[in-house]
Amino acid sequence: MSFDFPAYVQQCRERADSAIAKALTKSHCPQKRLLEAMSYSATNGGKRVRPLLVMAGAEACGNSASPAVDSAAAAIEMMHAYSLVHDDLPAMDDDKLRRGLPTCHIAFDEATAILAGDALQSQAFSELAELPNCPDKIKLQLIQELASAAGAAGMVAGQAIDLASVNQRISLAQLEQMHQLKTGRIIRAAIRMGAIASGRSQPDQLRALDDYADAIGLAFQVQDDILDVTADTATLGKQQGADEELNKPTYVSLLGLDAAKTKAEQLRQDAHQALAAFGPEALALRALADYIVQRAH
Amino acid sequence: MSFDFPAYVQQCRERADSAIAKALTKSHCPQKRLLEAMSYSATNGGKRVRPLLVMAGAEACGNSASPAVDSAAAAIEMMHAYSLVHDDLPAMDDDKLRRGLPTCHIAFDEATAILAGDALQSQAFSELAELPNCPDKIKLQLIQELASAAGAAGMVAGQAIDLASVNQRISLAQLEQMHQLKTGRIIRAAIRMGAIASGRSQPDQLRALDDYADAIGLAFQVQDDILDVTADTATLGKQQGADEELNKPTYVSLLGLDAAKTKAEQLRQDAHQALAAFGPEALALRALADYIVQRAH
Repeated sequence: MSFDFPAYVQQCRERADSAIAKALTKSHCPQKRLLEAMSYSATNGGKRVRPLLVMAGAEACGNSASPAVDSAAAAIEMMHAYSLVHDDLPAMDDDKLRRGLPTCHIAFDEATAILAGDALQSQAFSELAELPNCPDKIKLQLIQELASAAGAAGMVAGQAIDLASVNQRISLAQLEQMHQLKTGRIIRAAIRMGAIASGRSQPDQLRALDDYADAIGLAFQVQDDILDVTADTATLGKQQGADEELNKPTYVSLLGLDAAKTKAEQLRQDAHQALAAFGPEALALRALADYIVQRAH
Repeated sequence: MSFDFPAYVQQCRERADSAIAKALTKSHCPQKRLLEAMSYSATNGGKRVRPLLVMAGAEACGNSASPAVDSAAAAIEMMHAYSLVHDDLPAMDDDKLRRGLPTCHIAFDEATAILAGDALQSQAFSELAELPNCPDKIKLQLIQELASAAGAAGMVAGQAIDLASVNQRISLAQLEQMHQLKTGRIIRAAIRMGAIASGRSQPDQLRALDDYADAIGLAFQVQDDILDVTADTATLGKQQGADEELNKPTYVSLLGLDAAKTKAEQLRQDAHQALAAFGPEALALRALADYIVQRAH
Protein backbone atom coordinates (compact mmCIF):
# COMPACT_ATOMS: atom_id res chain seq x y z
CA MET A 1 0.00 0.00 0.00
CA SER A 2 2.52 2.59 -1.11
CA PHE A 3 -0.10 5.14 -2.21
CA ASP A 4 1.42 8.64 -2.10
CA PHE A 5 -1.57 10.66 -0.91
CA PRO A 6 0.17 14.08 -0.68
CA ALA A 7 1.29 13.69 -4.31
CA TYR A 8 -2.24 12.69 -5.32
CA VAL A 9 -3.70 15.72 -3.53
CA GLN A 10 -1.22 17.99 -5.28
CA GLN A 11 -2.02 16.46 -8.66
CA CYS A 12 -5.78 16.82 -8.13
CA ARG A 13 -5.36 20.39 -6.92
CA GLU A 14 -3.40 21.36 -10.02
CA ARG A 15 -5.94 19.67 -12.26
CA ALA A 16 -8.80 21.42 -10.41
CA ASP A 17 -7.09 24.82 -10.49
CA SER A 18 -6.61 24.50 -14.21
CA ALA A 19 -10.23 23.41 -14.78
CA ILE A 20 -11.56 26.29 -12.67
CA ALA A 21 -9.38 28.86 -14.43
CA LYS A 22 -10.67 27.59 -17.80
CA ALA A 23 -14.27 27.69 -16.58
CA LEU A 24 -13.89 31.29 -15.43
CA THR A 25 -12.46 32.29 -18.81
CA LYS A 26 -15.48 30.70 -20.48
CA SER A 27 -17.75 32.95 -18.39
CA HIS A 28 -17.07 35.83 -20.83
CA CYS A 29 -17.65 38.29 -18.02
CA PRO A 30 -17.50 41.85 -19.40
CA GLN A 31 -17.18 43.50 -15.95
CA LYS A 32 -13.59 43.38 -14.73
CA ARG A 33 -14.27 43.80 -11.00
CA LEU A 34 -16.94 41.10 -10.99
CA LEU A 35 -14.65 38.66 -12.77
CA GLU A 36 -11.83 39.52 -10.36
CA ALA A 37 -14.10 38.81 -7.39
CA MET A 38 -15.23 35.50 -8.92
CA SER A 39 -11.66 34.51 -9.60
CA TYR A 40 -10.48 35.68 -6.15
CA SER A 41 -13.13 33.53 -4.50
CA ALA A 42 -12.69 30.44 -6.65
CA THR A 43 -8.90 30.38 -6.86
CA ASN A 44 -7.76 31.38 -3.37
CA GLY A 45 -5.79 28.29 -2.46
CA GLY A 46 -8.64 26.11 -1.28
CA LYS A 47 -7.86 22.52 -0.37
CA ARG A 48 -9.95 21.37 -3.36
CA VAL A 49 -11.48 18.53 -1.37
CA ARG A 50 -14.62 18.45 -3.55
CA PRO A 51 -12.73 18.29 -6.89
CA LEU A 52 -10.57 15.57 -5.38
CA LEU A 53 -13.73 13.67 -4.48
CA VAL A 54 -14.94 14.04 -8.07
CA MET A 55 -11.65 12.71 -9.43
CA ALA A 56 -11.34 9.93 -6.86
CA GLY A 57 -15.00 8.97 -7.45
CA ALA A 58 -14.31 8.70 -11.18
CA GLU A 59 -11.16 6.71 -10.50
CA ALA A 60 -13.02 4.27 -8.26
CA CYS A 61 -15.24 3.50 -11.28
CA GLY A 62 -12.22 2.96 -13.48
CA ASN A 63 -11.94 6.15 -15.54
CA SER A 64 -10.81 9.49 -14.21
CA ALA A 65 -9.32 10.75 -17.49
CA SER A 66 -12.52 12.05 -19.12
CA PRO A 67 -12.78 15.84 -19.63
CA ALA A 68 -16.25 15.54 -18.05
CA VAL A 69 -14.41 14.84 -14.78
CA ASP A 70 -12.57 18.17 -15.04
CA SER A 71 -15.80 20.05 -15.72
CA ALA A 72 -17.60 18.33 -12.87
CA ALA A 73 -14.70 19.22 -10.56
CA ALA A 74 -14.72 22.85 -11.67
CA ALA A 75 -18.51 23.09 -11.38
CA ILE A 76 -18.72 21.70 -7.88
CA GLU A 77 -15.84 23.87 -6.66
CA MET A 78 -17.43 27.02 -8.13
CA MET A 79 -20.61 26.06 -6.30
CA HIS A 80 -18.65 25.58 -3.10
CA ALA A 81 -16.85 28.89 -3.61
CA TYR A 82 -20.16 30.74 -4.12
CA SER A 83 -21.54 29.24 -0.90
CA LEU A 84 -18.48 30.34 1.07
CA VAL A 85 -18.67 33.89 -0.32
CA HIS A 86 -22.33 34.21 0.69
CA ASP A 87 -21.87 32.44 4.06
CA ASP A 88 -19.08 34.89 4.95
CA LEU A 89 -21.30 37.98 4.36
CA PRO A 90 -22.03 40.30 7.31
CA ALA A 91 -25.70 39.26 7.29
CA MET A 92 -24.66 35.60 7.60
CA ASP A 93 -21.52 34.41 9.47
CA ASP A 94 -19.77 37.79 9.16
CA ASP A 95 -16.33 36.25 8.63
CA LYS A 96 -13.42 38.49 7.69
CA LEU A 97 -10.84 35.78 7.05
CA ARG A 98 -11.04 32.72 4.82
CA ARG A 99 -8.03 30.50 4.22
CA GLY A 100 -5.84 33.21 5.72
CA LEU A 101 -7.02 35.86 3.27
CA PRO A 102 -9.66 38.61 3.50
CA THR A 103 -13.09 37.26 2.58
CA CYS A 104 -14.58 38.43 -0.72
CA HIS A 105 -16.74 41.22 0.73
CA ILE A 106 -13.70 42.58 2.62
CA ALA A 107 -11.35 42.37 -0.37
CA PHE A 108 -14.01 43.87 -2.68
CA ASP A 109 -17.34 45.03 -1.24
CA GLU A 110 -20.58 43.46 -0.14
CA ALA A 111 -22.54 44.03 -3.35
CA THR A 112 -19.72 42.61 -5.45
CA ALA A 113 -19.48 39.58 -3.15
CA ILE A 114 -23.20 38.86 -3.50
CA LEU A 115 -22.98 39.17 -7.28
CA ALA A 116 -19.77 37.14 -7.56
CA GLY A 117 -21.47 34.32 -5.64
CA ASP A 118 -24.54 34.52 -7.86
CA ALA A 119 -22.43 34.42 -11.02
CA LEU A 120 -20.32 31.52 -9.76
CA GLN A 121 -23.49 29.50 -9.28
CA SER A 122 -24.69 30.22 -12.82
CA GLN A 123 -21.26 29.45 -14.22
CA ALA A 124 -21.22 26.06 -12.50
CA PHE A 125 -24.35 25.08 -14.44
CA SER A 126 -23.03 26.60 -17.69
CA GLU A 127 -19.86 24.56 -17.33
CA LEU A 128 -21.83 21.30 -17.19
CA ALA A 129 -24.45 22.24 -19.80
CA GLU A 130 -21.80 23.18 -22.34
CA LEU A 131 -19.46 20.24 -21.82
CA PRO A 132 -18.23 19.27 -25.30
CA ASN A 133 -18.12 15.67 -26.52
CA CYS A 134 -20.18 14.30 -23.67
CA PRO A 135 -23.49 12.43 -24.00
CA ASP A 136 -26.52 14.62 -23.18
CA LYS A 137 -27.66 12.06 -20.63
CA ILE A 138 -24.47 12.40 -18.60
CA LYS A 139 -24.55 16.20 -18.75
CA LEU A 140 -28.11 16.22 -17.44
CA GLN A 141 -27.34 13.74 -14.65
CA LEU A 142 -24.45 15.95 -13.55
CA ILE A 143 -26.69 19.04 -13.55
CA GLN A 144 -29.41 17.22 -11.62
CA GLU A 145 -26.94 16.04 -8.97
CA LEU A 146 -25.48 19.49 -8.54
CA ALA A 147 -28.77 21.42 -8.50
CA SER A 148 -30.51 19.16 -6.03
CA ALA A 149 -27.51 18.97 -3.68
CA ALA A 150 -26.95 22.73 -3.72
CA GLY A 151 -30.46 24.13 -3.50
CA ALA A 152 -33.42 24.31 -1.16
CA ALA A 153 -33.28 20.58 -0.40
CA GLY A 154 -29.56 20.64 0.32
CA MET A 155 -26.77 23.11 0.97
CA VAL A 156 -28.88 26.28 1.16
CA ALA A 157 -31.37 24.66 3.54
CA GLY A 158 -28.45 23.52 5.69
CA GLN A 159 -27.10 27.05 5.92
CA ALA A 160 -30.59 28.35 6.81
CA ILE A 161 -30.87 25.77 9.59
CA ASP A 162 -27.34 26.61 10.73
CA LEU A 163 -28.20 30.32 11.03
CA ALA A 164 -31.46 29.54 12.81
CA SER A 165 -29.61 27.40 15.35
CA VAL A 166 -27.35 30.20 16.64
CA ASN A 167 -28.03 30.62 20.37
CA GLN A 168 -30.42 27.65 20.25
CA ARG A 169 -30.07 24.36 22.07
CA ILE A 170 -30.30 21.69 19.41
CA SER A 171 -30.03 17.93 19.63
CA LEU A 172 -27.33 15.76 18.10
CA ALA A 173 -29.91 14.54 15.55
CA GLN A 174 -30.70 18.11 14.52
CA LEU A 175 -26.99 18.94 14.28
CA GLU A 176 -26.47 15.91 12.03
CA GLN A 177 -29.40 16.89 9.81
CA MET A 178 -27.97 20.39 9.48
CA HIS A 179 -24.53 19.14 8.45
CA GLN A 180 -26.01 16.46 6.21
CA LEU A 181 -27.77 19.25 4.31
CA LYS A 182 -25.12 21.94 4.52
CA THR A 183 -22.07 19.93 3.48
CA GLY A 184 -23.07 16.26 3.28
CA ARG A 185 -25.26 16.58 0.21
CA ILE A 186 -22.56 18.38 -1.78
CA ILE A 187 -19.88 15.88 -0.75
CA ARG A 188 -22.13 13.05 -1.85
CA ALA A 189 -22.85 14.88 -5.11
CA ALA A 190 -19.12 15.38 -5.73
CA ILE A 191 -18.37 11.65 -5.56
CA ARG A 192 -21.50 10.74 -7.54
CA MET A 193 -20.65 13.32 -10.20
CA GLY A 194 -17.19 11.81 -10.53
CA ALA A 195 -18.68 8.34 -10.89
CA ILE A 196 -21.23 9.59 -13.45
CA ALA A 197 -18.60 11.59 -15.38
CA SER A 198 -16.49 8.43 -15.64
CA GLY A 199 -19.23 7.01 -17.84
CA ARG A 200 -18.73 3.61 -16.19
CA SER A 201 -20.57 3.73 -12.85
CA GLN A 202 -22.74 0.76 -11.83
CA PRO A 203 -25.78 1.19 -9.53
CA ASP A 204 -24.22 -0.87 -6.71
CA GLN A 205 -21.07 1.22 -6.96
CA LEU A 206 -23.10 4.42 -6.62
CA ARG A 207 -24.80 3.07 -3.51
CA ALA A 208 -21.47 2.13 -1.93
CA LEU A 209 -20.05 5.55 -2.81
CA ASP A 210 -23.09 7.19 -1.18
CA ASP A 211 -22.36 5.33 2.06
CA TYR A 212 -18.71 6.31 1.86
CA ALA A 213 -19.67 9.94 1.19
CA ASP A 214 -22.06 10.08 4.14
CA ALA A 215 -19.35 8.77 6.47
CA ILE A 216 -16.60 11.13 5.34
CA GLY A 217 -18.99 14.09 5.08
CA LEU A 218 -19.88 13.75 8.72
CA ALA A 219 -16.27 12.96 9.68
CA PHE A 220 -15.18 16.15 7.93
CA GLN A 221 -17.59 18.20 10.01
CA VAL A 222 -16.77 16.52 13.31
CA GLN A 223 -13.07 17.11 12.65
CA ASP A 224 -13.78 20.76 11.72
CA ASP A 225 -15.49 21.24 15.07
CA ILE A 226 -12.55 19.59 16.84
CA LEU A 227 -10.06 21.82 14.99
CA ASP A 228 -12.13 24.92 15.75
CA VAL A 229 -11.24 24.49 19.43
CA THR A 230 -7.79 22.84 19.17
CA ALA A 231 -6.00 24.61 16.29
CA ASP A 232 -4.79 28.20 16.31
CA THR A 233 -5.88 30.89 13.81
CA ALA A 234 -2.66 30.77 11.77
CA THR A 235 -2.88 26.99 11.23
CA LEU A 236 -6.60 27.12 10.55
CA GLY A 237 -6.61 30.08 8.13
CA LYS A 238 -9.79 31.39 9.72
CA GLN A 239 -10.71 32.82 13.09
CA GLN A 240 -10.14 30.19 15.79
CA GLY A 241 -13.15 29.64 18.02
CA ALA A 242 -15.44 31.40 15.51
CA ASP A 243 -18.25 28.90 16.03
CA GLU A 244 -17.93 29.05 19.79
CA GLU A 245 -18.07 32.85 19.69
CA LEU A 246 -21.30 32.72 17.68
CA ASN A 247 -22.64 30.24 20.23
CA LYS A 248 -23.26 27.72 17.48
CA PRO A 249 -23.78 24.12 18.59
CA THR A 250 -20.90 21.83 17.55
CA TYR A 251 -20.03 18.17 18.00
CA VAL A 252 -17.52 19.24 20.63
CA SER A 253 -20.05 21.32 22.57
CA LEU A 254 -22.66 18.54 22.39
CA LEU A 255 -20.43 15.47 22.90
CA GLY A 256 -17.27 16.80 24.52
CA LEU A 257 -13.84 16.70 22.86
CA ASP A 258 -12.97 13.07 23.57
CA ALA A 259 -16.26 11.63 22.36
CA ALA A 260 -16.06 13.82 19.25
CA LYS A 261 -12.64 12.32 18.50
CA THR A 262 -14.01 8.80 18.99
CA LYS A 263 -16.87 9.58 16.63
CA ALA A 264 -14.52 10.88 13.95
CA GLU A 265 -12.49 7.66 14.15
CA GLN A 266 -15.63 5.51 13.92
CA LEU A 267 -16.74 7.39 10.82
CA ARG A 268 -13.31 6.85 9.27
CA GLN A 269 -13.75 3.11 9.75
CA ASP A 270 -17.30 3.24 8.31
CA ALA A 271 -15.88 4.92 5.21
CA HIS A 272 -13.37 2.12 4.70
CA GLN A 273 -16.09 -0.47 5.23
CA ALA A 274 -18.25 1.13 2.51
CA LEU A 275 -15.42 0.63 0.02
CA ALA A 276 -14.96 -3.08 0.81
CA ALA A 277 -16.03 -4.22 -2.68
CA PHE A 278 -13.57 -1.91 -4.46
CA GLY A 279 -9.99 -2.85 -5.28
CA PRO A 280 -6.92 -0.62 -5.60
CA GLU A 281 -8.88 1.83 -7.80
CA ALA A 282 -10.35 3.19 -4.54
CA LEU A 283 -6.97 3.78 -2.88
CA ALA A 284 -7.38 7.54 -3.14
CA LEU A 285 -10.81 7.47 -1.49
CA ARG A 286 -9.41 5.34 1.35
CA ALA A 287 -6.46 7.67 1.85
CA LEU A 288 -8.84 10.65 1.87
CA ALA A 289 -10.93 9.15 4.67
CA ASP A 290 -7.76 8.83 6.74
CA TYR A 291 -6.65 12.37 5.88
CA ILE A 292 -9.97 13.97 6.83
CA VAL A 293 -9.77 12.66 10.37
CA GLN A 294 -6.02 13.06 10.80
CA ARG A 295 -5.58 16.57 9.31
CA ALA A 296 -4.46 19.47 11.50
CA HIS A 297 -6.27 22.23 9.53
CA MET B 1 -57.45 42.09 -35.07
CA SER B 2 -59.69 41.26 -32.14
CA PHE B 3 -56.91 39.85 -29.96
CA ASP B 4 -57.88 40.21 -26.29
CA PHE B 5 -54.50 41.01 -24.71
CA PRO B 6 -55.71 41.54 -21.12
CA ALA B 7 -57.34 38.10 -21.20
CA TYR B 8 -54.17 36.60 -22.64
CA VAL B 9 -52.09 38.22 -19.91
CA GLN B 10 -54.42 36.88 -17.26
CA GLN B 11 -54.32 33.38 -18.72
CA CYS B 12 -50.50 33.40 -18.91
CA ARG B 13 -50.27 34.72 -15.36
CA GLU B 14 -52.46 31.93 -14.03
CA ARG B 15 -50.50 29.34 -15.94
CA ALA B 16 -47.22 30.81 -14.67
CA ASP B 17 -48.43 31.04 -11.08
CA SER B 18 -49.44 27.40 -11.18
CA ALA B 19 -46.13 26.32 -12.74
CA ILE B 20 -44.13 28.29 -10.14
CA ALA B 21 -46.15 26.88 -7.24
CA LYS B 22 -45.51 23.36 -8.53
CA ALA B 23 -41.80 24.06 -8.98
CA LEU B 24 -41.53 25.33 -5.40
CA THR B 25 -43.23 22.19 -4.08
CA LYS B 26 -40.73 20.10 -6.00
CA SER B 27 -37.90 21.90 -4.19
CA HIS B 28 -38.49 19.62 -1.14
CA CYS B 29 -37.20 22.37 1.12
CA PRO B 30 -37.04 21.09 4.72
CA GLN B 31 -36.68 24.58 6.24
CA LYS B 32 -40.05 26.30 6.57
CA ARG B 33 -38.83 29.88 6.75
CA LEU B 34 -36.57 29.48 3.71
CA LEU B 35 -39.41 27.98 1.67
CA GLU B 36 -41.73 30.78 2.80
CA ALA B 37 -39.20 33.39 1.70
CA MET B 38 -38.75 31.66 -1.68
CA SER B 39 -42.50 31.47 -2.13
CA TYR B 40 -43.03 35.07 -0.96
CA SER B 41 -40.51 36.29 -3.50
CA ALA B 42 -41.64 34.16 -6.43
CA THR B 43 -45.41 34.48 -5.97
CA ASN B 44 -45.89 38.11 -4.95
CA GLY B 45 -48.11 39.23 -7.78
CA GLY B 46 -45.47 39.96 -10.35
CA LYS B 47 -46.61 40.89 -13.85
CA ARG B 48 -45.12 37.61 -15.15
CA VAL B 49 -43.77 39.31 -18.23
CA ARG B 50 -41.02 36.74 -18.66
CA PRO B 51 -43.32 33.68 -18.42
CA LEU B 52 -45.62 35.42 -20.89
CA LEU B 53 -42.66 35.84 -23.23
CA VAL B 54 -41.90 32.12 -22.91
CA MET B 55 -45.49 31.21 -23.73
CA ALA B 56 -45.83 33.74 -26.54
CA GLY B 57 -42.46 32.63 -27.96
CA ALA B 58 -43.67 29.04 -27.98
CA GLU B 59 -46.96 30.10 -29.55
CA ALA B 60 -45.16 32.01 -32.31
CA CYS B 61 -43.49 28.71 -33.25
CA GLY B 62 -46.85 26.94 -33.30
CA ASN B 63 -46.93 24.98 -30.02
CA SER B 64 -47.41 26.54 -26.60
CA ALA B 65 -49.13 23.52 -25.03
CA SER B 66 -46.04 21.48 -24.12
CA PRO B 67 -45.31 21.02 -20.37
CA ALA B 68 -41.76 22.10 -21.20
CA VAL B 69 -43.21 25.57 -21.77
CA ASP B 70 -44.59 25.64 -18.22
CA SER B 71 -41.26 24.56 -16.78
CA ALA B 72 -39.34 27.10 -18.83
CA ALA B 73 -41.75 29.79 -17.64
CA ALA B 74 -41.37 28.77 -14.01
CA ALA B 75 -37.58 28.54 -14.30
CA ILE B 76 -37.11 31.96 -15.83
CA GLU B 77 -39.47 33.60 -13.34
CA MET B 78 -37.68 31.98 -10.38
CA MET B 79 -34.44 33.34 -11.85
CA HIS B 80 -36.01 36.77 -12.18
CA ALA B 81 -37.37 36.58 -8.63
CA TYR B 82 -33.94 35.66 -7.24
CA SER B 83 -32.36 38.62 -9.02
CA LEU B 84 -34.95 41.02 -7.59
CA VAL B 85 -34.45 39.68 -4.05
CA HIS B 86 -30.69 40.17 -4.29
CA ASP B 87 -30.93 43.54 -6.08
CA ASP B 88 -33.21 44.86 -3.32
CA LEU B 89 -30.68 44.03 -0.55
CA PRO B 90 -29.25 46.88 1.54
CA ALA B 91 -25.78 46.35 0.02
CA MET B 92 -27.29 46.73 -3.47
CA ASP B 93 -30.28 48.99 -4.30
CA ASP B 94 -31.56 49.00 -0.70
CA ASP B 95 -35.23 48.91 -1.73
CA LYS B 96 -37.90 48.43 0.91
CA LEU B 97 -40.90 48.09 -1.40
CA ARG B 98 -41.43 45.81 -4.37
CA ARG B 99 -44.80 45.58 -6.15
CA GLY B 100 -46.37 47.44 -3.22
CA LEU B 101 -45.13 44.88 -0.65
CA PRO B 102 -42.14 44.81 1.69
CA THR B 103 -39.08 43.39 -0.07
CA CYS B 104 -37.89 39.94 1.01
CA HIS B 105 -35.19 41.14 3.41
CA ILE B 106 -37.73 43.45 5.09
CA ALA B 107 -40.46 40.80 5.32
CA PHE B 108 -37.95 38.17 6.54
CA ASP B 109 -34.33 39.15 7.19
CA GLU B 110 -31.23 39.78 5.15
CA ALA B 111 -29.66 36.32 5.58
CA THR B 112 -32.91 34.60 4.62
CA ALA B 113 -33.25 36.86 1.58
CA ILE B 114 -29.74 35.99 0.38
CA LEU B 115 -30.42 32.28 0.85
CA ALA B 116 -33.89 32.41 -0.72
CA GLY B 117 -32.36 34.03 -3.80
CA ASP B 118 -29.62 31.41 -3.93
CA ALA B 119 -32.11 28.57 -3.63
CA LEU B 120 -34.43 30.04 -6.27
CA GLN B 121 -31.53 30.05 -8.70
CA SER B 122 -30.72 26.39 -8.01
CA GLN B 123 -34.39 25.47 -8.26
CA ALA B 124 -34.67 27.10 -11.68
CA PHE B 125 -32.00 24.73 -13.00
CA SER B 126 -33.50 21.72 -11.19
CA GLU B 127 -36.85 22.48 -12.79
CA LEU B 128 -35.35 22.29 -16.28
CA ALA B 129 -33.00 19.37 -15.63
CA GLU B 130 -35.81 17.22 -14.24
CA LEU B 131 -38.44 18.01 -16.84
CA PRO B 132 -40.26 14.74 -17.50
CA ASN B 133 -41.04 13.45 -21.02
CA CYS B 134 -38.83 15.96 -22.76
CA PRO B 135 -35.88 15.13 -25.03
CA ASP B 136 -32.50 15.57 -23.31
CA LYS B 137 -31.38 17.88 -26.11
CA ILE B 138 -34.19 20.34 -25.40
CA LYS B 139 -33.61 20.26 -21.65
CA LEU B 140 -29.93 21.06 -22.17
CA GLN B 141 -30.66 23.87 -24.61
CA LEU B 142 -33.05 25.41 -22.08
CA ILE B 143 -30.42 25.17 -19.33
CA GLN B 144 -27.74 26.65 -21.58
CA GLU B 145 -29.97 29.59 -22.51
CA LEU B 146 -30.86 30.31 -18.91
CA ALA B 147 -27.36 29.91 -17.45
CA SER B 148 -25.64 32.09 -20.03
CA ALA B 149 -28.29 34.83 -19.88
CA ALA B 150 -28.32 34.94 -16.09
CA GLY B 151 -24.65 34.69 -15.19
CA ALA B 152 -21.42 36.61 -15.51
CA ALA B 153 -21.96 37.30 -19.21
CA GLY B 154 -25.52 38.54 -18.67
CA MET B 155 -27.82 39.62 -15.87
CA VAL B 156 -25.29 39.58 -13.02
CA ALA B 157 -22.75 41.55 -15.05
CA GLY B 158 -25.49 44.07 -15.86
CA GLN B 159 -26.27 44.55 -12.20
CA ALA B 160 -22.55 44.97 -11.43
CA ILE B 161 -22.27 47.64 -14.13
CA ASP B 162 -25.46 49.28 -12.86
CA LEU B 163 -24.06 49.53 -9.32
CA ALA B 164 -20.73 50.81 -10.60
CA SER B 165 -22.51 53.55 -12.57
CA VAL B 166 -24.15 55.20 -9.53
CA ASN B 167 -22.91 58.80 -9.37
CA GLN B 168 -20.99 58.27 -12.62
CA ARG B 169 -21.52 60.07 -15.91
CA ILE B 170 -22.04 57.34 -18.46
CA SER B 171 -22.79 57.52 -22.15
CA LEU B 172 -25.95 56.34 -23.87
CA ALA B 173 -23.94 53.44 -25.33
CA GLN B 174 -22.82 52.39 -21.85
CA LEU B 175 -26.37 52.68 -20.53
CA GLU B 176 -27.61 50.46 -23.37
CA GLN B 177 -24.89 47.89 -22.71
CA MET B 178 -25.87 47.82 -19.04
CA HIS B 179 -29.56 47.25 -19.80
CA GLN B 180 -28.77 44.77 -22.54
CA LEU B 181 -26.91 42.70 -19.94
CA LYS B 182 -29.12 43.34 -16.92
CA THR B 183 -32.53 42.69 -18.47
CA GLY B 184 -32.08 42.27 -22.23
CA ARG B 185 -30.30 38.94 -22.09
CA ILE B 186 -32.98 37.37 -19.88
CA ILE B 187 -35.82 38.72 -22.03
CA ARG B 188 -34.13 37.26 -25.10
CA ALA B 189 -33.61 33.98 -23.25
CA ALA B 190 -37.30 33.88 -22.24
CA ILE B 191 -38.51 34.09 -25.83
CA ARG B 192 -35.86 31.68 -27.08
CA MET B 193 -36.67 29.21 -24.30
CA GLY B 194 -40.33 29.34 -25.31
CA ALA B 195 -39.40 28.70 -28.93
CA ILE B 196 -37.06 25.84 -27.94
CA ALA B 197 -39.62 24.33 -25.55
CA SER B 198 -42.18 24.29 -28.37
CA GLY B 199 -39.97 21.70 -30.06
CA ARG B 200 -40.70 23.38 -33.41
CA SER B 201 -38.43 26.40 -33.67
CA GLN B 202 -36.58 27.05 -36.94
CA PRO B 203 -33.23 28.90 -37.02
CA ASP B 204 -34.65 31.87 -38.97
CA GLN B 205 -37.49 32.12 -36.46
CA LEU B 206 -35.02 32.22 -33.58
CA ARG B 207 -33.11 35.03 -35.28
CA ALA B 208 -36.31 37.06 -35.82
CA LEU B 209 -37.35 36.46 -32.21
CA ASP B 210 -33.91 37.67 -31.05
CA ASP B 211 -34.44 40.94 -32.92
CA TYR B 212 -37.92 41.27 -31.45
CA ALA B 213 -36.57 40.55 -27.97
CA ASP B 214 -33.81 43.14 -28.27
CA ALA B 215 -36.34 45.80 -29.30
CA ILE B 216 -38.87 45.11 -26.54
CA GLY B 217 -36.14 44.58 -23.92
CA LEU B 218 -34.83 48.05 -24.52
CA ALA B 219 -38.35 49.50 -24.85
CA PHE B 220 -39.23 47.98 -21.49
CA GLN B 221 -36.30 49.74 -19.85
CA VAL B 222 -36.88 53.11 -21.55
CA GLN B 223 -40.52 52.96 -20.44
CA ASP B 224 -39.43 52.01 -16.89
CA ASP B 225 -37.24 55.10 -16.78
CA ILE B 226 -40.13 57.22 -18.08
CA LEU B 227 -42.50 55.81 -15.47
CA ASP B 228 -39.94 56.34 -12.72
CA VAL B 229 -40.38 60.10 -13.20
CA THR B 230 -44.02 60.29 -14.36
CA ALA B 231 -45.91 57.72 -12.23
CA ASP B 232 -46.58 57.99 -8.51
CA THR B 233 -45.48 55.43 -5.92
CA ALA B 234 -48.93 53.86 -5.49
CA THR B 235 -49.31 53.21 -9.23
CA LEU B 236 -45.73 52.02 -9.59
CA GLY B 237 -45.66 49.70 -6.58
CA LYS B 238 -42.15 50.86 -5.74
CA GLN B 239 -40.57 54.08 -4.62
CA GLN B 240 -41.13 56.76 -7.26
CA GLY B 241 -37.95 58.53 -8.28
CA ALA B 242 -35.83 55.76 -6.74
CA ASP B 243 -33.33 55.81 -9.61
CA GLU B 244 -33.10 59.59 -9.55
CA GLU B 245 -32.47 59.55 -5.82
CA LEU B 246 -29.59 57.09 -6.29
CA ASN B 247 -28.28 59.38 -9.01
CA LYS B 248 -28.39 56.52 -11.48
CA PRO B 249 -28.24 57.47 -15.14
CA THR B 250 -31.51 56.81 -16.99
CA TYR B 251 -32.80 57.31 -20.52
CA VAL B 252 -34.77 60.30 -19.24
CA SER B 253 -31.74 61.89 -17.60
CA LEU B 254 -29.59 61.31 -20.68
CA LEU B 255 -32.12 62.05 -23.45
CA GLY B 256 -34.82 64.12 -21.77
CA LEU B 257 -38.42 62.96 -21.34
CA ASP B 258 -39.68 63.69 -24.86
CA ALA B 259 -36.80 62.02 -26.66
CA ALA B 260 -37.13 59.02 -24.35
CA LYS B 261 -40.78 58.70 -25.35
CA THR B 262 -39.87 58.93 -29.04
CA LYS B 263 -37.25 56.22 -28.54
CA ALA B 264 -39.76 53.91 -26.85
CA GLU B 265 -42.15 54.34 -29.78
CA GLN B 266 -39.41 53.63 -32.32
CA LEU B 267 -38.48 50.44 -30.48
CA ARG B 268 -42.13 49.37 -30.50
CA GLN B 269 -42.15 49.71 -34.28
CA ASP B 270 -38.85 47.80 -34.56
CA ALA B 271 -40.42 44.95 -32.58
CA HIS B 272 -43.35 44.75 -35.01
CA GLN B 273 -40.96 44.83 -37.95
CA ALA B 274 -38.99 41.88 -36.57
CA LEU B 275 -42.17 39.78 -36.57
CA ALA B 276 -43.03 40.57 -40.21
CA ALA B 277 -42.60 36.95 -41.35
CA PHE B 278 -44.95 35.60 -38.65
CA GLY B 279 -48.71 35.27 -39.06
CA PRO B 280 -51.45 35.39 -36.43
CA GLU B 281 -49.49 32.99 -34.19
CA ALA B 282 -47.43 36.05 -33.17
CA LEU B 283 -50.44 38.19 -32.20
CA ALA B 284 -49.55 37.94 -28.51
CA LEU B 285 -45.97 39.09 -29.11
CA ARG B 286 -47.25 42.05 -31.13
CA ALA B 287 -49.75 43.01 -28.45
CA LEU B 288 -47.02 42.76 -25.83
CA ALA B 289 -44.79 45.20 -27.72
CA ASP B 290 -47.66 47.69 -27.68
CA TYR B 291 -48.38 47.06 -24.01
CA ILE B 292 -44.77 47.58 -22.91
CA VAL B 293 -44.67 51.09 -24.31
CA GLN B 294 -48.24 52.03 -23.41
CA ARG B 295 -48.39 50.68 -19.83
CA ALA B 296 -48.80 53.04 -16.89
CA HIS B 297 -46.90 50.89 -14.35
